[in-house]
Amino acid sequence: MREEEIIEFLRNCLAKKNEGVLVDIGDDAAVVKLGGEKIVLTCDTLEEGVHFLRDYFPLYFLGWKGMAVSISDIYAMGGEPLYSLVSLGVVEESGVEEIFRGVKEFSSQFKVKVVGGNLVRSDRWWIEVFSLGRVEKPILRSGAKIGDLIVITGYPGEASAGRKVLEEGRSGYSELKERFLKPFPRKEILEIKKEFSLTSLIDVSDGVGRDLYRILKESEKGAKIFPDELPISRNLKDFAGEKAFHYFWSGGEDYELIFTVKRGVNLPSYWKELPLAIIGEITGDVGVIKSGEQILEPAGYDHFK
Amino acid sequence: MREEEIIEFLRNCLAKKNEGVLVDIGDDAAVVKLGGEKIVLTCDTLEEGVHFLRDYFPLYFLGWKGMAVSISDIYAMGGEPLYSLVSLGVVEESGVEEIFRGVKEFSSQFKVKVVGGNLVRSDRWWIEVFSLGRVEKPILRSGAKIGDLIVITGYPGEASAGRKVLEEGRSGYSELKERFLKPFPRKEILEIKKEFSLTSLIDVSDGVGRDLYRILKESEKGAKIFPDELPISRNLKDFAGEKAFHYFWSGGEDYELIFTVKRGVNLPSYWKELPLAIIGEITGDVGVIKSGEQILEPAGYDHFK
Repeated sequence: MREEEIIEFLRNCLAKKNEGVLVDIGDDAAVVKLGGEKIVLTCDTLEEGVHFLRDYFPLYFLGWKGMAVSISDIYAMGGEPLYSLVSLGVVEESGVEEIFRGVKEFSSQFKVKVVGGNLVRSDRWWIEVFSLGRVEKPILRSGAKIGDLIVITGYPGEASAGRKVLEEGRSGYSELKERFLKPFPRKEILEIKKEFSLTSLIDVSDGVGRDLYRILKESEKGAKIFPDELPISRNLKDFAGEKAFHYFWSGGEDYELIFTVKRGVNLPSYWKELPLAIIGEITGDVGVIKSGEQILEPAGYDHFK
Repeated sequence: MREEEIIEFLRNCLAKKNEGVLVDIGDDAAVVKLGGEKIVLTCDTLEEGVHFLRDYFPLYFLGWKGMAVSISDIYAMGGEPLYSLVSLGVVEESGVEEIFRGVKEFSSQFKVKVVGGNLVRSDRWWIEVFSLGRVEKPILRSGAKIGDLIVITGYPGEASAGRKVLEEGRSGYSELKERFLKPFPRKEILEIKKEFSLTSLIDVSDGVGRDLYRILKESEKGAKIFPDELPISRNLKDFAGEKAFHYFWSGGEDYELIFTVKRGVNLPSYWKELPLAIIGEITGDVGVIKSGEQILEPAGYDHFK
């Protein structure tokens, strides 16, 4: 089973959309109605040995990144994060304080309240963060229309290049390393969505190719990529040379956002400090991503492949 | 650091009680205000090697018990569970379906909607369930008053005896085994709390002694135990003989409830099918649990001792 098949299985197995459940499993987060509000719910895990190795991953970053990954899913629905719970797998008590330094810094910077959690003795470090937010109108993966422009924030690929640098124990490339260790989810989306009419939205956790493909699949559309417009950074090119596109397309863990907007929108190249690149447009060629005559595979990280 | 010290550290580190946060870390679950409702939030983890061994723990029960442990925390605040998210650490894909059979059976029996979650490839099985409920007036650990009666549901100690039986690979004792594998959180509390005025409430996850002590600590009170009134079952006595009290007091994982009510309340011995035992009363002897002249230690499971 690939990850998509497992999600399909879960979708059939679990709660169906109904009056209380507005968005079920299969998007970045679930949306339920409660007390007249629409509430976004999500949880995510980082586990030693799966998502990082301890020798290059100081525990401070486990706290920060655990929070970032979870909150990114709230933004990826167009939601405003409010509360989190933090569960830790604890190898040594002495590390707990360091992890919570990261949690605390993140939560004060992103104005999220951490209201609870629990600790489990474990022989590997892990963090699981559940987060809850509020949304007026969720922006789903399924809303892309033919002709919409495909927009991406920041410089995807840098995070996975940073991981490679860390894994190989190389010196230098500190900006790439930082992008892997300490991602900044894109809270700017809450302002961008007020200004422009977004038709779909997802965060880049498993690679631009795979995450764009998720929009296409849920929207039943295809995409044409503008190869000269891809935001592949100088830093990434310096490190990866000819492989820069590979990191950009298949790397993952950037926690940037991909969204679609109606053609004709006057989108700036930057929203404040955040770069916005129009990397393509939506087509009717269902499930197919083309770049010129070339067909791009939606490669990227699949937990179950 | 003992678990209590870690919780104290977290309490100082994280969100403080304020207008939005009604109950923070340190009770069974957090309570926040959102859209005119009071929302109960909790998460809990079961991990292979920590909470169970794979050889005596069919994966169906991992799904059931993962849900049960989480939902029990909602009941332990007097809340009504509504939604859950389920995260799994997956060793083999083929087990996912079996786990979700347990999740699904639990969720339909307890009317909880599972609206999402995620799967992580792992080399051990684990489940983490986040749950969200609604509560009008949370029942905290901190509300016990001198003279209140201490009440406990069901037959604590059976679950940990069942664990022992399973660990030793013994045949028979199927009821004890079932109590460990498939706990039933006490949804009856939602009716009981309407009928009687409860002053404090907790669920029994780490042992009657330790969990009662948590009520005493938060309420700044003590307790006098009625040794002849302890609900130590026939099954438990048959298995454990003289050690029956040890299982009752220190065993844990029962997901029964301990609550306090004002003296003079006419409490029945059963609520429908659920046994209710008055096991003692609250005293002003802060932090001390007495049974006759004997002082009982609040022993029980501490993740960090």
